[in-house]
Amino acid sequence: MRHLPGQPQDLPGNRASLGHYAARHFLFSVDAGVATLTLHRPERKNPLTFDSYAELRELFRALAHADDVKAVVITGSGGNFCSGGDVHDIIGPLTQLDMPGLLAFTRMTGDVVKAMRACPQPIIAAIDGICAGAGAMLALASDIRIGTARSKTAFLFTRVGLAGCDMGACALLPRVIGQGRAAELLYTGRSLAGAEAERWGWLNRLVEPEELGDAAQLFATGLASGPTFAHGMTKKMLQQEWNMGVDEAIEAEAQAQAICMATNDFHRAYHAFVAKEKPQFEGN
Amino acid sequence: MRHLPGQPQDLPGNRASLGHYAARHFLFSVDAGVATLTLHRPERKNPLTFDSYAELRELFRALAHADDVKAVVITGSGGNFCSGGDVHDIIGPLTQLDMPGLLAFTRMTGDVVKAMRACPQPIIAAIDGICAGAGAMLALASDIRIGTARSKTAFLFTRVGLAGCDMGACALLPRVIGQGRAAELLYTGRSLAGAEAERWGWLNRLVEPEELGDAAQLFATGLASGPTFAHGMTKKMLQQEWNMGVDEAIEAEAQAQAICMATNDFHRAYHAFVAKEKPQFEGN
Amino acid sequence: MRHLPGQPQDLPGNRASLGHYAARHFLFSVDAGVATLTLHRPERKNPLTFDSYAELRELFRALAHADDVKAVVITGSGGNFCSGGDVHDIIGPLTQLDMPGLLAFTRMTGDVVKAMRACPQPIIAAIDGICAGAGAMLALASDIRIGTARSKTAFLFTRVGLAGCDMGACALLPRVIGQGRAAELLYTGRSLAGAEAERWGWLNRLVEPEELGDAAQLFATGLASGPTFAHGMTKKMLQQEWNMGVDEAIEAEAQAQAICMATNDFHRAYHAFVAKEKPQFEGN
Repeated sequence: MRHLPGQPQDLPGNRASLGHYAARHFLFSVDAGVATLTLHRPERKNPLTFDSYAELRELFRALAHADDVKAVVITGSGGNFCSGGDVHDIIGPLTQLDMPGLLAFTRMTGDVVKAMRACPQPIIAAIDGICAGAGAMLALASDIRIGTARSKTAFLFTRVGLAGCDMGACALLPRVIGQGRAAELLYTGRSLAGAEAERWGWLNRLVEPEELGDAAQLFATGLASGPTFAHGMTKKMLQQEWNMGVDEAIEAEAQAQAICMATNDFHRAYHAFVAKEKPQFEGN
Repeated sequence: MRHLPGQPQDLPGNRASLGHYAARHFLFSVDAGVATLTLHRPERKNPLTFDSYAELRELFRALAHADDVKAVVITGSGGNFCSGGDVHDIIGPLTQLDMPGLLAFTRMTGDVVKAMRACPQPIIAAIDGICAGAGAMLALASDIRIGTARSKTAFLFTRVGLAGCDMGACALLPRVIGQGRAAELLYTGRSLAGAEAERWGWLNRLVEPEELGDAAQLFATGLASGPTFAHGMTKKMLQQEWNMGVDEAIEAEAQAQAICMATNDFHRAYHAFVAKEKPQFEGN
Repeated sequence: MRHLPGQPQDLPGNRASLGHYAARHFLFSVDAGVATLTLHRPERKNPLTFDSYAELRELFRALAHADDVKAVVITGSGGNFCSGGDVHDIIGPLTQLDMPGLLAFTRMTGDVVKAMRACPQPIIAAIDGICAGAGAMLALASDIRIGTARSKTAFLFTRVGLAGCDMGACALLPRVIGQGRAAELLYTGRSLAGAEAERWGWLNRLVEPEELGDAAQLFATGLASGPTFAHGMTKKMLQQEWNMGVDEAIEAEAQAQAICMATNDFHRAYHAFVAKEKPQFEGN
């Protein structure tokens, strides 16, 4: 059964490849459907800058139309994930901005999270060492977090005189670790180490530092093998049902899953099962 | 104080007994206010079929008006809870349906969850062995989950090429175990064993397999002893406040609890306390 | 950069001091920006009465305008937190009220929670011994809970014939400990001991009984040292984003954080960092 001819990428303007994207402010590569984005300024623990925020926003927006990327790994170089917004490169200049300028900045950083939640690819954060401030928000905006015992996550905003409500933290963090624990981290900016982070559900899994890269790639490769159209629908509905009532969410899922039942991947899975084979998904 | 004469069952069309209901696609019995529903096709780990979905929907809808059932236990035969939608009986036929047919199916399965959340009786799932796919959703739609260490819960939809958004999973599961852990289970379909499930809050309690039936009955009997009108209000408000703001939820509870304070059960509790006796609740 | 002259307390009607507030139904003192509220009827485990509910409501409302209080500790005397509404002083009289009287009561108790969530100061509950019924709700309405291993939290409403939906419990508790565990506590009224409470995220931290007071004061003093304007914004946004969609929450935070970036505390933090000093926040 093939209900509809053609694929999304056949629509004009709806096809993009990121396989040869030359990133300017971080490392980026695509291999076998898995894009790996590495924050790479290891001597300063991979801070973010105005330019890297903007490029992250554009890249995650482009992923919405990239048919050669099926899952994303985001990580950092040199034993750290990301130290967040750089004090000299970001905080200093912010103190010179007027209100429209400040709002333009907070909207830009928020747009990175919006784009990460809106792209259909599941995002796996691989977290070692420092994961702080806006860096912790990149991890929070990911779907899956794999980390090490020595990883340290801290929502540091309060340390620079700011509120914990940055880039969606007050909405997202309570749903991951619970309202009481989220309040503690956001009010105090204290560091959450790996073992406690796993216990709280912040990290999906703890691995040794030397295994972190492989574990994240393995997880991403598994998702990239499909069913990718369905994974994109799962991600969309996790977002879409965030503040729906239960009955409305159930109806929304009835529609979303009926769409998935009209894909060939559903048929491929059935026929593979009957033939006692492993299904080969194609994302349509 | 008896504010209002008569009981809900006095309303025309609002009274039903399920004490002698003869189930066709599972086992069903009522004893001392506790209904026990046993999925019973043990040689195939208790799969669901089109017919059993439909009967589950009708039964849980009927429970809304059944004044002889105060709590429900749902379980499976032969050391397993439920293997979900049968590949041959369900998946195969679904691949032959057109879109209205697919949507009719996803709405039917969603209606089972809606009916489980809408009936006033608390539902206790007793989970041993396999608890997979739509079976995991029956457990998720329950109020309380008691399970064994050898129980294995898996939201398998992705394995047949479908999305994790099935029967309300993307709304319900994150609220039970957190957004990060829910995303992992829904994207991967991986199996969650009993000890980890208890640690995550998926299972309320771990018991030995031979104690599972008794533990669930004991829990249900406790709730069936009342105050059942109040329990029904608790269940209703857990649903009702799902996506309310905090202040609106507090006003909603002020109204709901004022209703409960006008019941005789509230007075019975007070008089029993004064008399140093155990209260006998009557559900009105 | 000082964008706006003056402070909130310069507005007519917007300034209040609680430093010398003489509480009538509990103990109250303010020291170095930390208000400590101690329920103090230790021979009966610190129950609540109609009068103490009303005074709590008025006090937390007044805190919204108290510029000499930056954080609040709520605790109880004599090794217990609070036993909830007194059976003789509250339950008995309630059985004599008509419906408008009942609703006036449930709205009054709900207003205590609304006022606790609306005041800008973070509230730290220090919990030893019994923490029951409406007492458990005072703890739940707090931002942070520090407790002892021997603390026992119980949402007892069901034991007096009432529903678990009291003062916002069905909205707040599932977000702190998860939907399944919250349902269990609300349906059964069972007691949750300290170690399990910490494991579930109900308690942020377990301490020895003799260290409880100091631990809560230390936590509160840390928050009172600022940035207090930002902490108030964090608290406001945790409330505000409760039932927003993700994208709307991100926009709301972009605005809220831009406001915080226009405060002097943000500038103080930057300059202190550059000077390698510890920032001195002033709450503006």
